[in-house]
Amino acid sequence: MKTLRRQSFLVAMCACVLAFTATITRAADPLSSWNDGKAKQSIVAFVNKVTQPGAPGFVPEAERIATFDNDGALWAEQPMYFQAFFVVDRIKALAPRHPEWKTTEPFASVLKGDMKAALAGGEKVLLEMVMATHAGMSTAEFEQIVKDWIATAKHPKTGRPFTEMVYQPMLELLAYLRANGFKTYIVSGGGIEFMRPWTEKVYGVPPEQVIGSSIKTKYEIRDGKPVLVRLPEINFIDDKEGKPIAINQHIGRRPIAAFGNSDGDLQMLQWTTAGAGPRFALIVHHTDAEREWAYDRKSHIGKLDKALDEAPARGWTVVDMKHDWKTVFGASTRQ
Amino acid sequence: MKTLRRQSFLVAMCACVLAFTATITRAADPLSSWNDGKAKQSIVAFVNKVTQPGAPGFVPEAERIATFDNDGALWAEQPMYFQAFFVVDRIKALAPRHPEWKTTEPFASVLKGDMKAALAGGEKVLLEMVMATHAGMSTAEFEQIVKDWIATAKHPKTGRPFTEMVYQPMLELLAYLRANGFKTYIVSGGGIEFMRPWTEKVYGVPPEQVIGSSIKTKYEIRDGKPVLVRLPEINFIDDKEGKPIAINQHIGRRPIAAFGNSDGDLQMLQWTTAGAGPRFALIVHHTDAEREWAYDRKSHIGKLDKALDEAPARGWTVVDMKHDWKTVFGASTRQ
Repeated sequence: MKTLRRQSFLVAMCACVLAFTATITRAADPLSSWNDGKAKQSIVAFVNKVTQPGAPGFVPEAERIATFDNDGALWAEQPMYFQAFFVVDRIKALAPRHPEWKTTEPFASVLKGDMKAALAGGEKVLLEMVMATHAGMSTAEFEQIVKDWIATAKHPKTGRPFTEMVYQPMLELLAYLRANGFKTYIVSGGGIEFMRPWTEKVYGVPPEQVIGSSIKTKYEIRDGKPVLVRLPEINFIDDKEGKPIAINQHIGRRPIAAFGNSDGDLQMLQWTTAGAGPRFALIVHHTDAEREWAYDRKSHIGKLDKALDEAPARGWTVVDMKHDWKTVFGASTRQ
Repeated sequence: MKTLRRQSFLVAMCACVLAFTATITRAADPLSSWNDGKAKQSIVAFVNKVTQPGAPGFVPEAERIATFDNDGALWAEQPMYFQAFFVVDRIKALAPRHPEWKTTEPFASVLKGDMKAALAGGEKVLLEMVMATHAGMSTAEFEQIVKDWIATAKHPKTGRPFTEMVYQPMLELLAYLRANGFKTYIVSGGGIEFMRPWTEKVYGVPPEQVIGSSIKTKYEIRDGKPVLVRLPEINFIDDKEGKPIAINQHIGRRPIAAFGNSDGDLQMLQWTTAGAGPRFALIVHHTDAEREWAYDRKSHIGKLDKALDEAPARGWTVVDMKHDWKTVFGASTRQ
């Protein structure tokens, strides 16, 4: 009897442990917001391939560089780039100091809330608005302005903070890659100093792994203390051909994996996948008009045309947002 | 008897363990090439202060950024910057393809071995020589050229490879900081792509933590493959005011410790030590004409004048190479 009881106990224990392990395994799926399908499978297969010591595709940790576009790849970008909302809010905040803006375009239209008219002047006036709002202060002052704005600003359609309009499946992907020894970088057309104040908290990407467009700065001593003053002059546009150029300048290594969503990422994906050994490229295709937005070849924001054509021939993974993602945005983290 | 014997054995064991521990402790001094003195003490005191959790000076690992100048701070820089030897060797190697150089300055003088005459034209001709040797090829081709050169070139005075003319005490310092959770960066006036091919092996600093001067590059598709072509156009000069600007651009955080040797590092040291909380700055003063070189205020290479004046008032550590370093260069690693 005693032996039997012990055996039953052991069997029960084993069952219990097995059940527990199964729960753990299920709960610990690092990509739980991804539906099982080709996209998820291709990610997992690539990570398994490059992380197995001794296997032919093994890549040492130091070389596991992954680069992510931001707008439309990590957070949403409709109805306009979120940084454009920042520009508008800054123009409104600065208007009292600039009475001339009431009668000067593009500022007059922005203040009237007519963005279409404001942007009619094309790239030139956009640049003018960026310079009027992004330059003329120290880097420390600008950092504080961005921090204050990102903590309070809300998306006009969803009413949620912009930092809650990040894609839950992509957050899981970032964490999954890092858990497998990857260094994750952001390589975005957005402003480098517009992103750095919040990317560590939101994406787990520290400032030194954020690459973006930038304006020039000037070193000055003010009241005996050194400051970097932001100048109204473009330093670098980190888009299209600019992305591989900036990757080379900042990182000095070719990524083995790259993630984007538009033709602005095409050269980064080409550059990444043209290297020797295992390479991975992924395009987030916005196909979900209900949960997010649906747009590609004809969109003014995040146009995806050439890269979508190149993807099949080059073996790049295309994420069909509607079918590949269980959830798009995560649960709200604020009250 | 038995008990006594056991006791003796235990005493002997203890003595043995103690002796062994002492040996380990001595052998494990991470800064063994530094003489005990103010410089070494200031380094150790700073590292202890910022790494003690809960203590008032504690700095989280992510913010432990340390930036090092290269020429004259990590390796020697006399009788001219080592990259200048590279330029000369490249001009000689490329001369057969440029018959016109035989009669065109500054190339004609370089080919005759008359560097003084070659450099008489000042900065303009220096730039011309850099462009003639650093541009016109892909980044991958240039990397290979640097790797081949650094593997074979020898210093004219010592006959040693340039990578053996690195300062042993500074190698120990780099390793000591990293062992204490610091991220070590190079911030040099030298070419970023001239340093990256060998800094990881020689200093343990990976390419993404190397910041330097650069020329522009262009993204091109050649035979269906993307390449970055190096253009004969300055992108950025990472010297003086350029250092804090580049640190902000690449790292996006202010370092808490900075290490230099010349007035070219002054702004980096100012910027670093002007931040809140514990800060550390160190200047390598070249005072050792026997083992290395002795120079400061009047030197054309690595002029140290203003920074030497500022050091005492700002509490910066000045290393007296002759007295603070037990050894200057490490043992030869090649036959």
